[in-house]
Amino acid sequence: MIHDGDTALVIDNAGKEHLVIVGAGRKFETHHGFILYDAMIGREWGSIIYSSLGHPYLVVPPSTADLIRHIKRSSQVIFPKDSAYILMRLNIKPGMRVLESGCGSGGLTLALAQAVMPTGMVYSQEIREDFLALTRRNMQRVDLDSYVTFILGDATQGFKVNEPVDAVFIDLPAPQTCLAQARAILKNGGFFGSLVPTTNQVQDILRAMDAMGQEGFGLVEVEEILLRGYKPVADRLRPRDRMVAHTGYLIFARAVIKPAPLSSRSTLLSENAAEATKNDSDAMEQADEQDHTTEHDF
Amino acid sequence: MIHDGDTALVIDNAGKEHLVIVGAGRKFETHHGFILYDAMIGREWGSIIYSSLGHPYLVVPPSTADLIRHIKRSSQVIFPKDSAYILMRLNIKPGMRVLESGCGSGGLTLALAQAVMPTGMVYSQEIREDFLALTRRNMQRVDLDSYVTFILGDATQGFKVNEPVDAVFIDLPAPQTCLAQARAILKNGGFFGSLVPTTNQVQDILRAMDAMGQEGFGLVEVEEILLRGYKPVADRLRPRDRMVAHTGYLIFARAVIKPAPLSSRSTLLSENAAEATKNDSDAMEQADEQDHTTEHDF
Amino acid sequence: MIHDGDTALVIDNAGKEHLVIVGAGRKFETHHGFILYDAMIGREWGSIIYSSLGHPYLVVPPSTADLIRHIKRSSQVIFPKDSAYILMRLNIKPGMRVLESGCGSGGLTLALAQAVMPTGMVYSQEIREDFLALTRRNMQRVDLDSYVTFILGDATQGFKVNEPVDAVFIDLPAPQTCLAQARAILKNGGFFGSLVPTTNQVQDILRAMDAMGQEGFGLVEVEEILLRGYKPVADRLRPRDRMVAHTGYLIFARAVIKPAPLSSRSTLLSENAAEATKNDSDAMEQADEQDHTTEHDF
Amino acid sequence: MIHDGDTALVIDNAGKEHLVIVGAGRKFETHHGFILYDAMIGREWGSIIYSSLGHPYLVVPPSTADLIRHIKRSSQVIFPKDSAYILMRLNIKPGMRVLESGCGSGGLTLALAQAVMPTGMVYSQEIREDFLALTRRNMQRVDLDSYVTFILGDATQGFKVNEPVDAVFIDLPAPQTCLAQARAILKNGGFFGSLVPTTNQVQDILRAMDAMGQEGFGLVEVEEILLRGYKPVADRLRPRDRMVAHTGYLIFARAVIKPAPLSSRSTLLSENAAEATKNDSDAMEQADEQDHTTEHDF
Repeated sequence: MIHDGDTALVIDNAGKEHLVIVGAGRKFETHHGFILYDAMIGREWGSIIYSSLGHPYLVVPPSTADLIRHIKRSSQVIFPKDSAYILMRLNIKPGMRVLESGCGSGGLTLALAQAVMPTGMVYSQEIREDFLALTRRNMQRVDLDSYVTFILGDATQGFKVNEPVDAVFIDLPAPQTCLAQARAILKNGGFFGSLVPTTNQVQDILRAMDAMGQEGFGLVEVEEILLRGYKPVADRLRPRDRMVAHTGYLIFARAVIKPAPLSSRSTLLSENAAEATKNDSDAMEQADEQDHTTEHDF
Repeated sequence: MIHDGDTALVIDNAGKEHLVIVGAGRKFETHHGFILYDAMIGREWGSIIYSSLGHPYLVVPPSTADLIRHIKRSSQVIFPKDSAYILMRLNIKPGMRVLESGCGSGGLTLALAQAVMPTGMVYSQEIREDFLALTRRNMQRVDLDSYVTFILGDATQGFKVNEPVDAVFIDLPAPQTCLAQARAILKNGGFFGSLVPTTNQVQDILRAMDAMGQEGFGLVEVEEILLRGYKPVADRLRPRDRMVAHTGYLIFARAVIKPAPLSSRSTLLSENAAEATKNDSDAMEQADEQDHTTEHDF
Repeated sequence: MIHDGDTALVIDNAGKEHLVIVGAGRKFETHHGFILYDAMIGREWGSIIYSSLGHPYLVVPPSTADLIRHIKRSSQVIFPKDSAYILMRLNIKPGMRVLESGCGSGGLTLALAQAVMPTGMVYSQEIREDFLALTRRNMQRVDLDSYVTFILGDATQGFKVNEPVDAVFIDLPAPQTCLAQARAILKNGGFFGSLVPTTNQVQDILRAMDAMGQEGFGLVEVEEILLRGYKPVADRLRPRDRMVAHTGYLIFARAVIKPAPLSSRSTLLSENAAEATKNDSDAMEQADEQDHTTEHDF
Repeated sequence: MIHDGDTALVIDNAGKEHLVIVGAGRKFETHHGFILYDAMIGREWGSIIYSSLGHPYLVVPPSTADLIRHIKRSSQVIFPKDSAYILMRLNIKPGMRVLESGCGSGGLTLALAQAVMPTGMVYSQEIREDFLALTRRNMQRVDLDSYVTFILGDATQGFKVNEPVDAVFIDLPAPQTCLAQARAILKNGGFFGSLVPTTNQVQDILRAMDAMGQEGFGLVEVEEILLRGYKPVADRLRPRDRMVAHTGYLIFARAVIKPAPLSSRSTLLSENAAEATKNDSDAMEQADEQDHTTEHDF
């Protein structure tokens, strides 16, 4: 049942969403008349409520993804398709310690905090005070700020965390400048992730990972997640006409300890190094025989 | 540090993975010699350990996704790209109550249990005793069975749950046969999800949802998640040659209460009904103007 | 060199295109001033010409695809990514005879005529006089009308062609209603193609093909072509943010003669029949082992 | 009807294809018995013919794409999905002059020759004698060698063509090393295309194009073509399980004449230069507003 003080997602017939706090005695102004919150209170969630001008509005409790979509933002928010996959790939679960840097507007922070509670902690380091303040306010608004430690600081100078973390996520323009810093606070075997929009940045990160010493990264994977929506019409089922074609490239890796480089074995550890020795036609003709298995190179 | 009794993921240079339990005094047989577990114990996670024949093996702690990939299976397991997105779309988080049916081999069960712990509960209903038994064993193996209630039963006869649940996921060949049953145990405003491999099944589900009475589903969305992998090579960055092109269509909806059908307003509530009246060329030419927003029809 | 009377594509800095006929003594009005055609005449193709207000305009000769994009249209035009693939799959080349129905605004007609000239012929049958007239005008405008025979007629009543054709393309809302008619005018072994926007229409066509007698279709394939564009920026190379996610499903087949149905062999000839006997989990678990080869079922 | 001496595509029930020349008195050996060619002669194309062991074989005339798939190859062949799109983007049609370099095994050569005949010409320049010889033999085999001029030569030393060409296609590992050479033989306004497997190569080409002088390239586009196949089963319509995820990046451009660089206008001509000045968040947040139109930058 809808109660006074609840956070509600109100959606009109055209799909336009409004995130509101139900307030007895107040009213919600729409483009097509208003709705008295008192008309919502006591009704079942999932009900359709009509505005003063007779337009239908569906009222549902917001999901975490809905909240993220509606947080106040000062920058690009990571898309739900990506943040869902990031949480899975970084093995985020109740009790985990995870560092993210930067925090943006707190979209991923919110998803992380929701997933590590009640016993875990999100460390959120950010160089810009305004972004950090906005993220803090956004977390307070959804009562998740007690699961986040807000840290003002430059990632290239290191991460101000007093305990090793299970996972690190870097959402910065030049992740290659703070890979060693990320590795330093990661538990051995821990999970690394990053998201960058361009192929050039992916190349920079891969090159920097290759150049790291014994304490480095392995099992490196570069991936994209694409979401294709369909028109949900039984007799005319077909994909939507347009889709988001690109949000970013995802890079994932594990914190590993490589053997001493004097061994010739070290050349075995890098797909990059191995591949670099192949000539073009080889690389083209070679089938991806191991595509069916999880293909790893460390 | 790696301890006796730990579960470890051991990965060879070709990406082949083995999920093992570290056992003092025993050894792990590989295709290229053996490794004494005693040689692992006391080493750092993320270390590379050489077999008796000198082959390198990386040892890392498994993620939940790693565990799912390695559970004993009797049927198709939902892919990580899909299960990650399902968890997000169903708003799974610590403390939630969620029903899944069927349970398959427990792949999604494991992900759900991991996400709702320590205060939530997964109800897993399955018509086949052998599948249910396998899922129970798989959950016991990873110490998550206390977060799962195992239910033997036919979904078309209703779900044997004594409390309303926050979310329902249907992984059955004919989800349209148990939509009303799913709706009956869902909280109003709750989250519904399903995965089916064919377009015909999607059509069947949409048609059945259209035919439901006042207690039905709204905000219906049909989606696909595609994962594209890249060769992680800085100087030759490019997509892998082949990819998984299809695992299934995802259907998501919210449990809603529709207004009484005497009102002409009810026609507003279905994109299906609305779209059905358009002629072909209209449907083709009409741009997806609302594609940029979350487009909903309820 | 640009001559009086040439057809030219004039493109502004924002990518906006104008298809013009260069006319001595006249001028081309832009949003940012005008350009005298006399200033174009005698200049090299590929030159940049400035408008009276100093805006740069690139002038190039239009390709066939450019012409199609700019023909006067009364209906949806088949996208270049699709028409290019259709021409290849229907084996269109100089000298071929091909029937299309309907003609729409003549977009595909233009591409077909350009490809079969100087010795081939496009038969374009259409039930609507206005569409046929528009297509004729569009072909006249680009001097290709002598390679097209314009036929007014209902496809379900048969195709009014006096010779067997090498290929047939059906661009109608219900292709299943004229499959036998298409087969009747196709040479044995000839090429069939169709494009429909919905999965339901694909199912209808496949079902109708299955129901045909000995003179039917084989080697049936259903495909989609997706085009992903990139921002052409060397230091920030990445996909464009959005893309066209769906234009239509393409169905291709060859005109075959099936053996008499008394033989049990006939069951071998249909992937549809074969697949229908599998149960769900089989279909899911079975890997596409033959994906690497051209997988055919007839 | 099938005649002695015809080229035929013979396809078994599993989709395995054989390209054969029908020869009276000889026989075709299959994995499941043999077929006498005399049993094919006089039968209709599209017929199913049974082997001595009773296995059905479909016999159809090969398309150009079928021929390309079966030419003798010494290197990677451009995929049909790509070559179809390349022909369209390069505006290949009867009568055109087009240069390609290198020729590989002649797959694209065959498609080009088929499309420009009977009045056009394909210039095929290749540095390796063995590749050129193989391409010549492959063209002779399909009677298209009279539409191809075979040129032995290093692309970086220039293209040995005595007339300006309408289009150039570069299929070499380092296209950036012969861009000026390609521009030199292209008609002003002409069509340029290239295919490379890696993002690094795309960046190299874009960078080299940016560095060219007044006679350069404009309307640069980078694109990928993806082909998704479906199982053609009416009651279980769904995508195939796996697909080819990457063949190459396609780069297209037009030969343009840029204004003298003293003008500040020149900065308008490059999306590359313009974009480079944007900061990261801008680039991320900016919607692709012009995605709906053909977005060009010259």
